[in-house]
Amino acid sequence: MTEAGGIAAEALRSYIERIERLEEEKANLAADIKDVYSEAKATGFDVKIMRQIIRLRKMEEHDRQEMEALLDTYAHALGMIRG
Amino acid sequence: MTEAGGIAAEALRSYIERIERLEEEKANLAADIKDVYSEAKATGFDVKIMRQIIRLRKMEEHDRQEMEALLDTYAHALGMIRG
Amino acid sequence: MTEAGGIAAEALRSYIERIERLEEEKANLAADIKDVYSEAKATGFDVKIMRQIIRLRKMEEHDRQEMEALLDTYAHALGMIRG
Amino acid sequence: MTEAGGIAAEALRSYIERIERLEEEKANLAADIKDVYSEAKATGFDVKIMRQIIRLRKMEEHDRQEMEALLDTYAHALGMIRG
Repeated sequence: MTEAGGIAAEALRSYIERIERLEEEKANLAADIKDVYSEAKATGFDVKIMRQIIRLRKMEEHDRQEMEALLDTYAHALGMIRG
Repeated sequence: MTEAGGIAAEALRSYIERIERLEEEKANLAADIKDVYSEAKATGFDVKIMRQIIRLRKMEEHDRQEMEALLDTYAHALGMIRG
Repeated sequence: MTEAGGIAAEALRSYIERIERLEEEKANLAADIKDVYSEAKATGFDVKIMRQIIRLRKMEEHDRQEMEALLDTYAHALGMIRG
Repeated sequence: MTEAGGIAAEALRSYIERIERLEEEKANLAADIKDVYSEAKATGFDVKIMRQIIRLRKMEEHDRQEMEALLDTYAHALGMIRG
């Protein structure tokens, strides 16, 4: 194991390069996601609403219902008209 | 104007120190905001819902209505029941 | 205490409005910070380097020295030439 | 093409599901990256320094040298001792 300044240089390089490969794959996926949103936008869909829908779909149905009900209650208490 | 490595050291220091003071004030405000949320939470309010309400209140009424209507349309199209 | 859907509407409004005021002040400070960076940039300073300097100045001197030494060791182990 | 509230429900579902699959893959990669950092940490490497090294390795050599030199100049002008 080559040592450089008391550290295992090869081990460090291996970790760094593994992380760099994974980060590159992650960046590619982020670009793919961006492409799908652009495709959807080009066919007339609203990207902001799609993102909200995706956030909502991550929630359990009953949690989502509870959140919506509480949001209505708070909005009503503050005189805000909701959808 | 003292020069250090070809740069105006005093001017640099003044900019840096002004930014540091402003950032400190900003950090204090962030702490104050956190305190108010903690106070609200302690009296039974839901912090996540409060944050959503604050985001909604930043929107113009008609923009908000439009967003809610579109969210309903998309949710309905995907078979999601909304509040 | 007026109740709306079982919640204390006035208390909620007070918390929300306090947070909104604090967030507005915070946004103003963020704008002030941006202005100072623009001023510095206009006089020839490098904003990215200024941000790094401000991050470094937040660290204790010995922590900073330790970090720099370790950064040198890792960079050297990976064959990177540092300043 | 089934319509729901005037939008192409199937097209929307397809975009949403494609994004959800890609986001899941991306989240898995983020978890893999986190695992590699944990592995490296367990063998004694400093994760913060590794992240800095990875940021530096993304830069062109001459850009990195220029940044380091300017950082030294600014630090020196402010009386900060660098590594």
